[in-house]
Amino acid sequence: MSVPAQAPNGNKLAARRLGLDTHDELVVITRRDSPVCRSEGFSAHARVRLKNGRRNIIATLYQVDSALIGLDELGLSESAWKRLGVAEGDLVHISHPQPVASLSAVRGRIYGKRLDRAQMHATINDIAAGRYADVHLAMFLSSMAARDPDDDELTDMIQAMVDVGERLEWPRDVIVDKHCVGGLPGNRTTPLVVSIVAAHDLWMPKTSSRAITSPAGTADTVETITRVDLDIPTLRSVVRAHGGCMAWGGAMRLSPVDDTLIRVERLMDIDAEGQMVASVLSKKVAAGATHLVLDVPVGETAKVRSQHDAERLAGRLETVGARFGMKVRVLITDGRQPVGRGIGPALEAHDVLAVLANADEQPKDLRARSVLLAGALLELAGVAEAGEGGPMAENALASGLARQRFEAICRAQGGLREPPVATETHDMPSAHGGVVRRFDNRRLAQVAKLAGAPGAPAAGVYLHARLGDRVERGQALYTIHAESRGELAYAREYAETNGIVTVGGEA
Amino acid sequence: MSVPAQAPNGNKLAARRLGLDTHDELVVITRRDSPVCRSEGFSAHARVRLKNGRRNIIATLYQVDSALIGLDELGLSESAWKRLGVAEGDLVHISHPQPVASLSAVRGRIYGKRLDRAQMHATINDIAAGRYADVHLAMFLSSMAARDPDDDELTDMIQAMVDVGERLEWPRDVIVDKHCVGGLPGNRTTPLVVSIVAAHDLWMPKTSSRAITSPAGTADTVETITRVDLDIPTLRSVVRAHGGCMAWGGAMRLSPVDDTLIRVERLMDIDAEGQMVASVLSKKVAAGATHLVLDVPVGETAKVRSQHDAERLAGRLETVGARFGMKVRVLITDGRQPVGRGIGPALEAHDVLAVLANADEQPKDLRARSVLLAGALLELAGVAEAGEGGPMAENALASGLARQRFEAICRAQGGLREPPVATETHDMPSAHGGVVRRFDNRRLAQVAKLAGAPGAPAAGVYLHARLGDRVERGQALYTIHAESRGELAYAREYAETNGIVTVGGEA
Repeated sequence: MSVPAQAPNGNKLAARRLGLDTHDELVVITRRDSPVCRSEGFSAHARVRLKNGRRNIIATLYQVDSALIGLDELGLSESAWKRLGVAEGDLVHISHPQPVASLSAVRGRIYGKRLDRAQMHATINDIAAGRYADVHLAMFLSSMAARDPDDDELTDMIQAMVDVGERLEWPRDVIVDKHCVGGLPGNRTTPLVVSIVAAHDLWMPKTSSRAITSPAGTADTVETITRVDLDIPTLRSVVRAHGGCMAWGGAMRLSPVDDTLIRVERLMDIDAEGQMVASVLSKKVAAGATHLVLDVPVGETAKVRSQHDAERLAGRLETVGARFGMKVRVLITDGRQPVGRGIGPALEAHDVLAVLANADEQPKDLRARSVLLAGALLELAGVAEAGEGGPMAENALASGLARQRFEAICRAQGGLREPPVATETHDMPSAHGGVVRRFDNRRLAQVAKLAGAPGAPAAGVYLHARLGDRVERGQALYTIHAESRGELAYAREYAETNGIVTVGGEA
Repeated sequence: MSVPAQAPNGNKLAARRLGLDTHDELVVITRRDSPVCRSEGFSAHARVRLKNGRRNIIATLYQVDSALIGLDELGLSESAWKRLGVAEGDLVHISHPQPVASLSAVRGRIYGKRLDRAQMHATINDIAAGRYADVHLAMFLSSMAARDPDDDELTDMIQAMVDVGERLEWPRDVIVDKHCVGGLPGNRTTPLVVSIVAAHDLWMPKTSSRAITSPAGTADTVETITRVDLDIPTLRSVVRAHGGCMAWGGAMRLSPVDDTLIRVERLMDIDAEGQMVASVLSKKVAAGATHLVLDVPVGETAKVRSQHDAERLAGRLETVGARFGMKVRVLITDGRQPVGRGIGPALEAHDVLAVLANADEQPKDLRARSVLLAGALLELAGVAEAGEGGPMAENALASGLARQRFEAICRAQGGLREPPVATETHDMPSAHGGVVRRFDNRRLAQVAKLAGAPGAPAAGVYLHARLGDRVERGQALYTIHAESRGELAYAREYAETNGIVTVGGEA
């Protein structure tokens, strides 16, 4: 047995960067026969503590028998590599971790106990520090789903989620924001709402996410027009100068625990109400919002499927939002079909630009939805009288003021460019004549993703028909856009073998 | 983009064995920039379906940017490699998996619905087929812990766990078995109980596990004396000839889902009552047991910590066992200190042999515990009148009949050998004189593991003092045994810095 294995303080192995993307799960790989592992009695899938100078993490251990890793090496996932802040070859100390104290409170919650403020903060801190394995995160999320958190618990959770991340402060009493609970392709209202309310002298420092499971996130769409990866100082100056921004929030660490929880929720495929509330509000509190309008599309293939669920969620958001001094207004909207014609980063960007330009071919539904949300924000923020918000918002678009503001913001963020156009397209014809009865939003999103969105920005789907339209046999219902023949063929094959748009006889 | 990526049926990559031990979690690693992944839009941590001929699995995808894996390769964990039954270079088809239907029932259970028989069987089948990621297993276990399964649900679960594995059939109406709920070092009664009841012409086809988190499992201990990795035909013939066996059950696929659930429960560190009942009974039903005696040690550092918990667990085991026509008797025993003097495979084996040989230095507590359990089995099986089981068991030991039977079984399993003896030992002295007041079973086990047990069979701890013993200052409380100086130093360092045995003043 080698010397390092003999003294507990000598449990050191040379760090090796594997370039292994495990998302934010922390993974370390060692040789099963490494002296350190043998003397420590580590087994595959054990939780181990890694220490590099002052930094330390708890990671999941996998073991190899092959020469993939050297006997004196320790391979790290990208997530672990970054958290440990190591350089190639640095000696990292590996040992048994102390039990994570907050986990016993989480276990208690499974058995019916609530988490008090201290326990909730300890839990969120440990999650932020990467001390929870995915199974622990699943245990926590399950416990919250099994017994819906009460408003106190939810408030503590949101506060804790905000506390472990960055928080934007603004020299204004009114900071507006909007959010869509999602599940609806297209519906790219954010750039329009920002431009409209900023044109009316409200401050809207909008940070958005990139797509995770959808064909496009707002950040992906805006990125086809201007730069979105702003640092916080740049974001501040853009907002101070133009009243709004459209930035990617991913790198800003606003409620970073939310991103971790969302990843595991996606794997579990659960959307517990309490968790949705904590997710939305923690991000908005961290962004410094005081007035928030929420778009909750309801439809059988949207995220929220019934009016009843939407109303319960709305009530919860408004009550808990008030705990943080946030005025929240929820708009329950039609989620039966996509909003706008484009699905995919560039195609949605073209829709946005068409609305701003008051072009003939602009998608009226996207314009209407944006006016609705912006109008609600103008009223909520006290800039417009009840009932006046809509007309004011419409006016900002019609007058071109919103467009000017949009372009000013883009230039301030790094310049204005034309979104790309796909090289490969294919029209999808209707199998028979009739009336468009139904859209499967999930499958439509899948077609856009198979076509290459969001990775290929010009890829996606462009809709020619809407619910209620009469179509002839052979008439194009939508066009698939792709940047490669392979992806086009692939998306087309899926579209041809799965019902995407339902065309029926006369009602 | 390469051709394979263009047609969905062409999504094939060459299998590469990574020798990566992820326990039974199925993991696949590809290059992030591989055309297949790009066209499929796979992201790190996605669940993917892998197909090789008729076999297919769902695995968790990790992605590398480094040259660790080739562009046209797909690296597989050992678990995935074996389930897929591939050879190096075989083309494996990778695609998006169908949603796992049973997961929606599990989600429903989190929200308060029970699983009906069909749903429970579907769930256990999917787990057995490796379709659940660890987060899904954690979700299932959390849902069962949050709302304790009723007897019907538990019965369905046990039946399903038995159905997906092998099941031993025996040409006798009475098949006895025993099990210890564990958490107590030493307590190696199984070989003694098997020998005693077999000597009284009962059949006890005992299958045991290897240590997972403890310093020794029964299989590890018996393996220092004879062979334990028997196949089912060999096991049958040993039992037919001698009435008992002491085999490793790990390779027999008796309730294989239990092993999967236990691994994740360990990570979650939960021992939900219902889960314990399902775990024990599913293994015993699969082994064909009709009469079962359970040893439930109670103590502050044992698995079951209060008399009340033990009694609830006992009631549950007896009720649900009856659903399977199994007579279950639970013995609640003293779990305050180890049973026997040895902790570690060989040291426990020496204890067992000393009892069988009626040697002077035999551990009386181990003998008494074994007589208690064997006696209870003799009575439960109707071989002994009430109150007569103990004396009959003691008699089998005293007469040497148990020893003869033990040796016959060992010879039939592959021969009888002397357990090894450690090359390195160190006595741990008492810091002061007084009476032994307390043992920390968990830390004692940790010392034995750091000394090398069970990997190093001769390693472990040998106790010289018991609760209530008066000891002098400097007198050895226990001796650490190891096979290497490094491990000895390591275990010693831990023992010296952690309170293992508490010696106090006069009561």
